[in-house]
Amino acid sequence: MANAYASQSFTLPAPLSLDNGETLASAQIAYETYGELNDEKSNAILICHALTGDQYVASDHPITGKPGWWVRMVGPGKPIDTDRFHVISANVIGSCMGSTGPASLAGDGKPYAMRFPVITIRDMVRGLIALLDGLGIDQLHTVVGGSMGGMQALSLAANFPTRAARVLVLASTARHSAQNIAFHEVGRQAIMADANWLEGDYYGGDVPASGLSVARMAAHITYLSEEGLTDKFGRRLQDRDSKSFGFDADFQVESYLRYQGTGFTQRFDANSYLYITRAMDYFDLAEEFAQSGNDTTEAAKLANAFAGHARGEGARFCLVSFDTDWLYPTAESRHIVHALNAVGAPVSFVELSAPYGHDSFLLDLPALDRVVEGFLK
Amino acid sequence: MANAYASQSFTLPAPLSLDNGETLASAQIAYETYGELNDEKSNAILICHALTGDQYVASDHPITGKPGWWVRMVGPGKPIDTDRFHVISANVIGSCMGSTGPASLAGDGKPYAMRFPVITIRDMVRGLIALLDGLGIDQLHTVVGGSMGGMQALSLAANFPTRAARVLVLASTARHSAQNIAFHEVGRQAIMADANWLEGDYYGGDVPASGLSVARMAAHITYLSEEGLTDKFGRRLQDRDSKSFGFDADFQVESYLRYQGTGFTQRFDANSYLYITRAMDYFDLAEEFAQSGNDTTEAAKLANAFAGHARGEGARFCLVSFDTDWLYPTAESRHIVHALNAVGAPVSFVELSAPYGHDSFLLDLPALDRVVEGFLK
Repeated sequence: MANAYASQSFTLPAPLSLDNGETLASAQIAYETYGELNDEKSNAILICHALTGDQYVASDHPITGKPGWWVRMVGPGKPIDTDRFHVISANVIGSCMGSTGPASLAGDGKPYAMRFPVITIRDMVRGLIALLDGLGIDQLHTVVGGSMGGMQALSLAANFPTRAARVLVLASTARHSAQNIAFHEVGRQAIMADANWLEGDYYGGDVPASGLSVARMAAHITYLSEEGLTDKFGRRLQDRDSKSFGFDADFQVESYLRYQGTGFTQRFDANSYLYITRAMDYFDLAEEFAQSGNDTTEAAKLANAFAGHARGEGARFCLVSFDTDWLYPTAESRHIVHALNAVGAPVSFVELSAPYGHDSFLLDLPALDRVVEGFLK
Repeated sequence: MANAYASQSFTLPAPLSLDNGETLASAQIAYETYGELNDEKSNAILICHALTGDQYVASDHPITGKPGWWVRMVGPGKPIDTDRFHVISANVIGSCMGSTGPASLAGDGKPYAMRFPVITIRDMVRGLIALLDGLGIDQLHTVVGGSMGGMQALSLAANFPTRAARVLVLASTARHSAQNIAFHEVGRQAIMADANWLEGDYYGGDVPASGLSVARMAAHITYLSEEGLTDKFGRRLQDRDSKSFGFDADFQVESYLRYQGTGFTQRFDANSYLYITRAMDYFDLAEEFAQSGNDTTEAAKLANAFAGHARGEGARFCLVSFDTDWLYPTAESRHIVHALNAVGAPVSFVELSAPYGHDSFLLDLPALDRVVEGFLK
């Protein structure tokens, strides 16, 4: 039985093979669990987190003290019901909340920093599979994730088709677009431009907080819709009656973004941001499964990734997109659905209407609750 | 007769009154002209430039050596025909190509830097009007501008309704949205985070090139459509056959953005970027002309701005938007058209289909040429 609300850590028994050809020795995976695992070990749900997320899905964050990032979805009687399911959420390799990443100590006792290998989404998933092996869980009831969590769910389904009976993908994509890569590159350049970055060797000194804050601000805009920003802030001024004719945060939206940026730097490592954005940019499931010659269309290439689910013999899939999500718009989900259809995998797909853009999967949206509940029945 | 291809400079005979309550003494306006002014002085077209534009509309840029930014539109036999019109383009106050801005010397012989007053779009227009006064031009044939140039054209029409007979506004807006402000704030924070910025007092030393480059990269993404980026770059790699598993510019879109960023820093002053983005964020023509009490709708508020054009007694207007422009989407142009309709001003409006987003007004688009030609007839 899992300890309810304390992070646990799993040390991989074997070196983790990576897509770049290297291996990562003695990698650790930090994880949280909620609800009890049944005797058959058949009620486990793995929740994969997004770029800046972590394993604190439904328990207070140890640094910020804030409630878990998906408390509205996960808990007793909630859509992902911990009275019924054993929920596992693990910090991905490359991140900074206990799993091995650039801030971790390498064999020489010093932080890896930029010596950490460039990893992929599939490498993160290999780490998660090793954790499931360690926990003795052969097949998940469901793997679920939003945004980068959805990429992990897709990668798990593609590379380890027997390991999950259901795959739930929210606001995600099977490939990073040129615009997605472009926004991430802005963030990386902002971090690397920070005088404190020092080619990544800032541990023990001042961290590149200004650069990381700018990276977060730029990314945060992409998580919200234009309409959502207008509803929430419009052109309203912050704590003043008229413009200051200066460079303070006159507008509420400026104040909000600055707060998002600086708050983020207190809980996230800048090098982890570099590595994880890189993994996301590298993600292209069709390319990963491309076979020479025959596949002329993008849909046919992507269909290869789901060969393990052909003719309904694999997992059931559910995809959800949001109509105001311009980071991973509905067309990207539809592209995945077409590929799943091409192999005859059972898939349901819904575009939900929500005003808040990409972040809608994290917000209060009863329609999403109903989709999740229904899919887990 | 104007000298064809050399920048000229005009010193304002009186201090320039600014919206912040201050005045700017001995302000200079650098400008270019093309084509001859007729004896009646009735054939002048003022072209207002965008945020990072300048007066080199149709002549080589003195720093980069590149052709003017609108050579395809302006010249003998072109849509803005210099065989017929006397074209004037002036660097705005606050910029850095010869007009007075933060890099200019203040009365104490040192650069203004952050002592430069925070200006508005209307202040820029006041400078342009002073230039027209100096040139003895009572009424322009047309004032034209795209993006921030369109804001100036709208502000000129609103504040000086007799000074232009035609007003041509491309890919612009009457107000900056929360999302517009948010992207600009990211750019400003990137500049201010640069260790070389030194609260703006970097003149004579190393400039905050890294921060300015990041600002430009973030902004540049907003100038292009997602589709345009995908067409142009997709996920194609830059000069390599496979991913490097590193942080070089693996993808063409990364390489392109970095090039855009660093190239920009060679021709633009970081403090000017702060001041001009601030002026754009402050722009809200409806708010500027708001009358107490009665105007309940946004359209009614904006209509006040165009009171000088009521019942067809003022200028003729033409607005053009682009279907893939997500920076200033068509809805913003439509909002302006509604306000002009409300006062009975003659206005034509077209949304053009173009794949390249906001920057479409600068690119090869025969449909735009026809609209411009037709409106100037």
